[in-house]
Order: sequence, then structure tokens, then C-alpha cells
Amino acid sequence: MSQDIYDKIMMLSKRRGFIYPSYEIYGGVAGFYDYGPLGSRLKQNIENLWRSYYLLKDNCVEINTPTITLFEVLKASGHVDEFTDLTVDCKKCKQSFKLESLVEEGKDIEKAAEDGKVKCPNCGAILKNPYPVNLMFSTKIGVGTTRDAFLRPETAQGIFTNFHLLYRYAREKLPFGVIQVGRGYRNEISPRQGTIRQREFNMAEAEVFFNPEDKTHPNFESVKDNILFLFDNVKEMKISMDKAVKDGVINNQALAYYMYLTQDFLMTAGVDPKKFRFRKHGDDELAHYATECWDAELFSERFGWVECVGIADRSAYDLSSHIDSSGIDMYALQKFDKPKVVQVKKIIPNMGKLGPKFKDKAGKIKTVLENMEVKNSKNIVIEVDDEKIKIPNDCYKIVEKKEKITGEKIVPHVIEPSYGIDRILYCLLEHSYVETKKKGEEYKLLKLNRIIAPIKTGVFPLISDDKLLKIAKEVDKKLRDAGIATYYDEGGTIGRRYARMDEIGTPFCITIDHDTLEDKTVTIRDRDTTKQIRKKIDEIISYIKG
Amino acid sequence: MSQDIYDKIMMLSKRRGFIYPSYEIYGGVAGFYDYGPLGSRLKQNIENLWRSYYLLKDNCVEINTPTITLFEVLKASGHVDEFTDLTVDCKKCKQSFKLESLVEEGKDIEKAAEDGKVKCPNCGAILKNPYPVNLMFSTKIGVGTTRDAFLRPETAQGIFTNFHLLYRYAREKLPFGVIQVGRGYRNEISPRQGTIRQREFNMAEAEVFFNPEDKTHPNFESVKDNILFLFDNVKEMKISMDKAVKDGVINNQALAYYMYLTQDFLMTAGVDPKKFRFRKHGDDELAHYATECWDAELFSERFGWVECVGIADRSAYDLSSHIDSSGIDMYALQKFDKPKVVQVKKIIPNMGKLGPKFKDKAGKIKTVLENMEVKNSKNIVIEVDDEKIKIPNDCYKIVEKKEKITGEKIVPHVIEPSYGIDRILYCLLEHSYVETKKKGEEYKLLKLNRIIAPIKTGVFPLISDDKLLKIAKEVDKKLRDAGIATYYDEGGTIGRRYARMDEIGTPFCITIDHDTLEDKTVTIRDRDTTKQIRKKIDEIISYIKG
Repeated sequence: MSQDIYDKIMMLSKRRGFIYPSYEIYGGVAGFYDYGPLGSRLKQNIENLWRSYYLLKDNCVEINTPTITLFEVLKASGHVDEFTDLTVDCKKCKQSFKLESLVEEGKDIEKAAEDGKVKCPNCGAILKNPYPVNLMFSTKIGVGTTRDAFLRPETAQGIFTNFHLLYRYAREKLPFGVIQVGRGYRNEISPRQGTIRQREFNMAEAEVFFNPEDKTHPNFESVKDNILFLFDNVKEMKISMDKAVKDGVINNQALAYYMYLTQDFLMTAGVDPKKFRFRKHGDDELAHYATECWDAELFSERFGWVECVGIADRSAYDLSSHIDSSGIDMYALQKFDKPKVVQVKKIIPNMGKLGPKFKDKAGKIKTVLENMEVKNSKNIVIEVDDEKIKIPNDCYKIVEKKEKITGEKIVPHVIEPSYGIDRILYCLLEHSYVETKKKGEEYKLLKLNRIIAPIKTGVFPLISDDKLLKIAKEVDKKLRDAGIATYYDEGGTIGRRYARMDEIGTPFCITIDHDTLEDKTVTIRDRDTTKQIRKKIDEIISYIKG
Repeated sequence: MSQDIYDKIMMLSKRRGFIYPSYEIYGGVAGFYDYGPLGSRLKQNIENLWRSYYLLKDNCVEINTPTITLFEVLKASGHVDEFTDLTVDCKKCKQSFKLESLVEEGKDIEKAAEDGKVKCPNCGAILKNPYPVNLMFSTKIGVGTTRDAFLRPETAQGIFTNFHLLYRYAREKLPFGVIQVGRGYRNEISPRQGTIRQREFNMAEAEVFFNPEDKTHPNFESVKDNILFLFDNVKEMKISMDKAVKDGVINNQALAYYMYLTQDFLMTAGVDPKKFRFRKHGDDELAHYATECWDAELFSERFGWVECVGIADRSAYDLSSHIDSSGIDMYALQKFDKPKVVQVKKIIPNMGKLGPKFKDKAGKIKTVLENMEVKNSKNIVIEVDDEKIKIPNDCYKIVEKKEKITGEKIVPHVIEPSYGIDRILYCLLEHSYVETKKKGEEYKLLKLNRIIAPIKTGVFPLISDDKLLKIAKEVDKKLRDAGIATYYDEGGTIGRRYARMDEIGTPFCITIDHDTLEDKTVTIRDRDTTKQIRKKIDEIISYIKG
């Protein structure tokens, strides 16, 4: 059977230490992958490049929260009820499938099942009666009296549940952003897309909090003329950020800005610009928390257009839900430039009536009444000490008065750029994979960008001569001490050593030869041009750091 | 109630953004903590310092494997059967407790329970009948036909299950080391030690593979005169690494070397040398996989001596178990310097007998017989196509012959330094926390080492003057672009701004004043001496990087 590009990359990945299928010695299990020594570095380089965008360019702060998440959090966030896939079981071969994976794209999947048009991919039996299955991995905390918990489906909730503390850290100014990089989990029903659909994956998310009335971004002006490549499910368009926002193609500056940041990050990482687009979510595919979402999609020869980043406007959804569910004040107080005078309704409690009627509870009732927002003037029901109490009309009066206020409590809106690191990593491997011939033999290269390449340079003594070995090891140490990842190799011909480095995407190879002994120069070979230049040892570091 | 140092640090941590108790808005749950913006940086700095020891000094490679781990892996590793705590339930107040936590240190815990000497800390009832409870969080992979899994109790198994691939990556040379940094999980029964005993924690582990016959370390010679501070549960001793190994206090060079590396790392991170020791595990406390283990312990005013690092000799335990359980060849082939001639027993199959007797299976049987190791010459039973077959004596003969072999298959031994990052982080906060008075008022400082401090320098315009603000922002950007974490602050008096930085352990504060406009110099204030010096703007970066 002929191999496609995915098979080739996975073989290379396993042989050279990028990606290993997890638990293979026990037969493996779909949806889990290990990063070997090179994959681990590649992943870290991608994450650090990403951090430089969000921490340095966009001034976010980073936090780290647990992956085990309390039931209460994910109930409030809607994931317990909404984070589901329609599933069908095959009664004949006892397997379960994600309904969507069995129906042609664009078709109504529920109707297809109803009409008996969905067949088991194993045995051909008709599959009916789809039912929703929650995709979170569940576990229990403690022994005896346990608490229900899930592995987090996104890192975002760890940020939302700390909003009040983070807002204080940001000295109560909007907008401000918080990032988290780490594992996310999704118990896929029957994952069949290799490293693209993992059950445990690496995410990098930013949650940026805005005043709902003002979704402008302070950096927008300086980048607004950049062109974005958009696809709205009907037509493709190339359009400036500025025009896209003005024409309402993209709802607000903040969304457009993070789309630009995403595009710039992916191009810098080495994505093929011809295999990149933003696609808008249709109303029927929006997540339960989103009002608008644009995916950055990368094209894969095996998998087609792959969603690698989602940039969503989550509005006030999450913070409002947590305020409602927890009762904790997680509002943002936004101060006005100057105080405003507003007309307000106030309740004036009548203690002469409240006192005799409610006795020792009257004091507490008075405090609640004085501080509550007045919505309607009749049928006031309040809660005191977990007891609902109806307050008779004669126990209070309502007055309207003018009040000077210095600010208002708002629930910020959230713009969320969410990155699937594993998918980006795979697409970068695919986009940089080149097959060619050298001296009649098959030759493989990974043209990884310098900034993400796991090894920046090979270091080779030309021949196994003690003097050359000594200098080569010194050069190697010097580079490593300067934070440059090297691969020292004294085995085999120079051609073989170049080939080993080309195959793992190393942009440079340094060779120490007899001239080095004379004039302290070395050759530096460029992976993509295969040209060699001579440089002084002292100049190598700045040359390679570029 | 008076606060102890732990309470004070946790209050500071929450207020300033180091550590937040997780899920507090939903009432919280013991054993889970979030790292806020400063804690997250502090943690990352500790981890990166650690990486510099293992990746640069010790030449290890890093990998990343899933936290969700197949049942089969943890069954083989012994965790399913051995990773337990004795638990007692209180029938009266329906709570469960870890037996060990209720018995005085040094006492026989099982006997104490038998003798009715263990009381419920809540209601005083006698607690009896302890039973083992597995401490792994369990979950299930998939829908319908599920597979059992656990959250990993250590990152190590992800390394062991890839040993054969990693050994190939290391070009089949011993010793070589592999590290992993990430989450570990332990479903504690009733954790009551705050950030010291977390249910989800951050680990950094190295698994270094040695030839069992040769546990020397290539770097040992150059550091062997360093003094280690050891405690063998009876007496304390200060002893050189060299002498400790020669006298058999520490079993081998490899253990001693990683103890030294640990000590050097902790001191560089800023541990108080007076609050540091290595303690040897007694036979009764060794983990099920260890033959010898030394803990690096740090002293905490609240918690006493805290185990922060374990340096264990795991011998061949894990690799042997996985070879046995999976049947995969994970041996290391060690080539001899020159080939050896050995006497071997070989089976010569007799096809004239095998053919008629076993028909189409005879060929397969022949291959198995020729390749098997001969233990006894009679009663040979082999397995072909899942069927056990007894081979009659007349179907083969056994000959002894000389054979030249170039190497031998061995199961490497593992030396494992395993670090609890959260415990180290907390102890560093405690060791650097200083309370003093300033102008009659309480004043708090964190004397964090420069290398791990989350913010390296504050950047302050002296007053709110447009010209000063402009330069201050430029200086701030310049530092950030050079990878130096800064905190820009224009609010409040300089004294207040210094205080804010002192409290979070920022070693330097840079102030831009009117002289800056004249001569491009700024003041740099040192946290610990409070002395100020003037430096040119161009000199700041190298000064702060030290």
C-alpha cells in the first residue's frame, strides 16, 4: 500500500524521536501520543514563540491551574450539559461511533440517522437512535465521601474562576488578558484522525477581558492595514482588518486584532501561506458559549482544512454563569471619567412594621432591602438565612431620588484566541516536509523555520582526529552555553551526517576541519541552499541566532 | 488567632498573585492550588533552572507523554497493587482518614489501630480496621467498550514505556538520561498540609539508565570533593561524595552524583543551606520499586522537614516489569570492546520426525526451536499460534558449541532524581520571607534569588511628567525585549512602589528622574541593601542579567 504524507511523517517521527504513539508496547490506544526528544523541543519552541506574542506584544499575564476540575465549575460553564457528541451504537459489532463522522459533510446528521442512511463502517448494519454523550473524562476526588470532577476540556475555566483576583492583579483596568498553556482533554468516541484528534492534547489559550461597550484594541491602529484571508463558508476574500471591521465582516476590533496576531504567529512559525485561511463558524456550529468565532485553518494533504486556532467572542457568557452559580461578586467596577448623576429607586424599610412582624430577623431584612436593586415595586421576595421571605407592601415604601455615582459594575466580555498546539505542530511538519533525490536515492528534508527547529545546528569534526574532536567539543559546549540547541556527531561520512540533520530540520551544520586549527574558522552549511561559508568561531553564535 | 509563617505567605500569595486556592468561588477543595501571574513565573523559573542542570550539565533529553495512563502500564509498574495508603473510616462522622496521619511519627501504625489507640480527629471515636486504598485517580477511555486508565502518579512510566525508542535515540550508549516535567496526581485521602500535599502537583523527573555493572558517572571525578550533608535517621554527617561512596554510605557514584546536582540546584535556587539535608529512606519506607533512596529535605517552620526531592535507585524493576508484561524487547544491547567466545547449547530440530508429526506447523516449530534459549534438555514446551505444544525428545537433539558474541542483552538500571516543584517553590517562599519594620510599620520582603524572582526589575518614572513617562516606557520595552521580566509602575510614592516590589521579591528597581533627561542615567536600587547606584541606560541590561 502506498504511503501518504501523514504515514511518511509519522514513520520519520517515530524513527527520529518526534512523535511516538503512546503505550504501543501494550497495543496502544487511539488518541494518545508522546513527544520524543525532538518533538518535545519542537513543541516547546512553538509554545515559547506563542508566549512571546501574548506576553510581550500583548502584555498578557500567565497562570497555571489544575487539570482536574470540580463538577460545579463545568456545570456552571455549560460543559456538563452541552459538551456532547451525538453517538450511535452498532448492535451487531458492539462499537460506538460519533454520528458526525459517518455522515457526509454538509448533510443534516440527525435526519440522516432518522432516514436510516447511516451505516456501520465495520459491518454495514444500519445505525439508528443517536444519543448525546458527554466528552469529558470523569473522575472522583477523595475517598468515601467523594466529589465529582472532570479533566478540563479547556484551560479557560481556570482563568474565569479566578477573574476577580486577576482583575485586581491587573489593577482594575480593562482590557487585560490572561493566558494558560497546558493539557486539555476530550474523550473522543472513536478518534480516527491520528495526531489531529487527540484525547489528551496541548492547548495555549488567551482570555482577554473587554468592556462590552468598547471592544477596541489599543494596538489595532498600528496594524489595521494588514490583509486577512477570510472564508465565510460561501466565498473567499482578501480584506484589510480595518475594512473587515468597518464593513461588519468581523464584528469588532478585538476579534480582528487577535486574528491578525494569530496569522502573524503562524507565518513566523513557518506555515505555508497558501495553506492558511480564516473560516467563520456558521450559526449551527458555534460552541454553546460563543457569539462569533473564526477558525484559523491549515491545509493538510491527508486531513484537508484543519481547525488549528479558534478565535471566539464568548461575550459575558462564562463570567455571568459563574456569578450566577457561585454568588461571588466577580463584576468589574469601571470608574467614569467624571461622576454621573442618575435617577435611582430606593427602598425605605418601615421598621415600625418590620420589627413586630419579623422580630430578630428585622435587622437583617432591613439591610437586604436597603441594598437591593429595585425591579418591581410589588411582591418583593428576599432571602435571609436560606429562607425566602415575602415582604408585605406596608413594610416599605419606594422613593425615587438622584444619586451621584463614580462608576458602574459590569460583566466584562471575553475574546478568546484558543490554539491547538499539536495540530499546529503536525501541520508545520507537513508543510515543511520535502522529498527529493540525491545521487539517485530518496532524500528527505524538513524545512522547519529556524525559530522552531528543535536542533539549530549540527557540530561535526571532519575526521576522527583528537585535535579536531577537542575543538569540536569546545564549539559544541560554547553554543549550548549560549542557549543554542546543538547535535554533536562524529559518526559516519559528512554526507551522512548532513542527511541526518536535514531529515530533522536542522537549519545549520558546522564542520571543524584542518583549517580550523590554522585560522579558527569553521564551515557553516545552510540546509536549504546547501551552500557553505567559512566563519570565525567567535562569529558563529551571532550568525546562528540571526 | 496568631498567624504562622504559612498563613502569612498564603495571604501574601493570594493578594499579590502567587498562589490561589483552586475553585474557591465554589467553596474550594483540599489539595488543589492555582498559580497566579507571579507564581506561574516563579514556577517556570524554577523549572527552567532545573532544566539547565539536566539538559545542559547532564546532557539528558526531554520528552512529553500523556497524563492519562493505561491500566496495563500501571499494573505492570506495580502501582495498581502497591500505590496505596492505609485508610480508616469514622463510622460516626462518615469521614475517611489516612491512618499514618493519625499516629505519632515513628510508631507502628497498624499496631496502633489494632490496639484501639487511633481516634477520629473530629469526634474522638475509636477508629479500627484500616484497609488499603489506591491513591490513583481513575477514569475510563472511550464510550461503550471502555478501557481503564489512571492519571499518572509519576511522569516516569512515560519514559520507561518508550525505553527502546529512547535508547535508539541515544545511539545505544549507556548511561543516558531522559527527563520529563509536568503534572502528577495522587488522590490523597484527607490532605491537610496545604500546598505541601497536593492532589495534582508539578513534578520534574529524570530517569537515567546505567549498565548494572557500572554505576559510575562520567562527571563524578570533577565534583567528587563536594561535601554532602547526610542524615541516616540516626546521626548527621558532613562527608565528601567520594568518601561517602568509598565507605558505602551511598551505594554508588550515580546516586551520589545526582545528590550533588540536587544540592547545587537547590542552593542556586536560593534554599537556606541551614534548612537543607539528605535523609536516607529506611527499609520500611522505600517505595515498592526502590532499592535505595535519599530524600532532599527542606525545613519549613510550619511543616518541619519536608521531602522535596527523592533520589532513588530503581534498579531494573520497571524495565523488567514492562518486558515481562508486554513481551516487547526492551533490552539494551551492550557491545563488548572485543568479541567473546562462549559455550552455548543449541537445539538441532529433526525435520524427519517433526514433519510427519506436526505437518504444516513443523516449519514454525523448527524456527522457534532454533532460536530458543536452552534451559533444560527434556520436556520442551513451546507456543505456536497461541497453542502450547510439547515436543517429543526424538524430534531434536541438543549440541554444545562455541560461539563468538559481540555483546550482550542487559536490562539497564535506573537512577531517578524526582523533584516536587510545588514543595520546592513553597519552601523557597518561606526561606526568603522576611518581616521587618519601616518607619514603625510592618514591612514584608521576599528575598528571592535573582535567578528565580518572577519580576527582575520595577521600572518607575519618578513623577508623572510626560517626558519621564516616555523614557520610562522605552526603558521598560527595552528590558522586556531583552527577555527581562519587568513591572512598570507609575502609581503612588516611590516608597510605596519600592514596597510593592520588595513584597514580591523583585531584586531591582529602576527609577527614571530629571537627571535621566540630561545624562541618560537612571538609579538602580538593590532590594536587599536598599542602596542606589546610577547607571547609563545602555548598561542596565548587562547589570541586571549579572
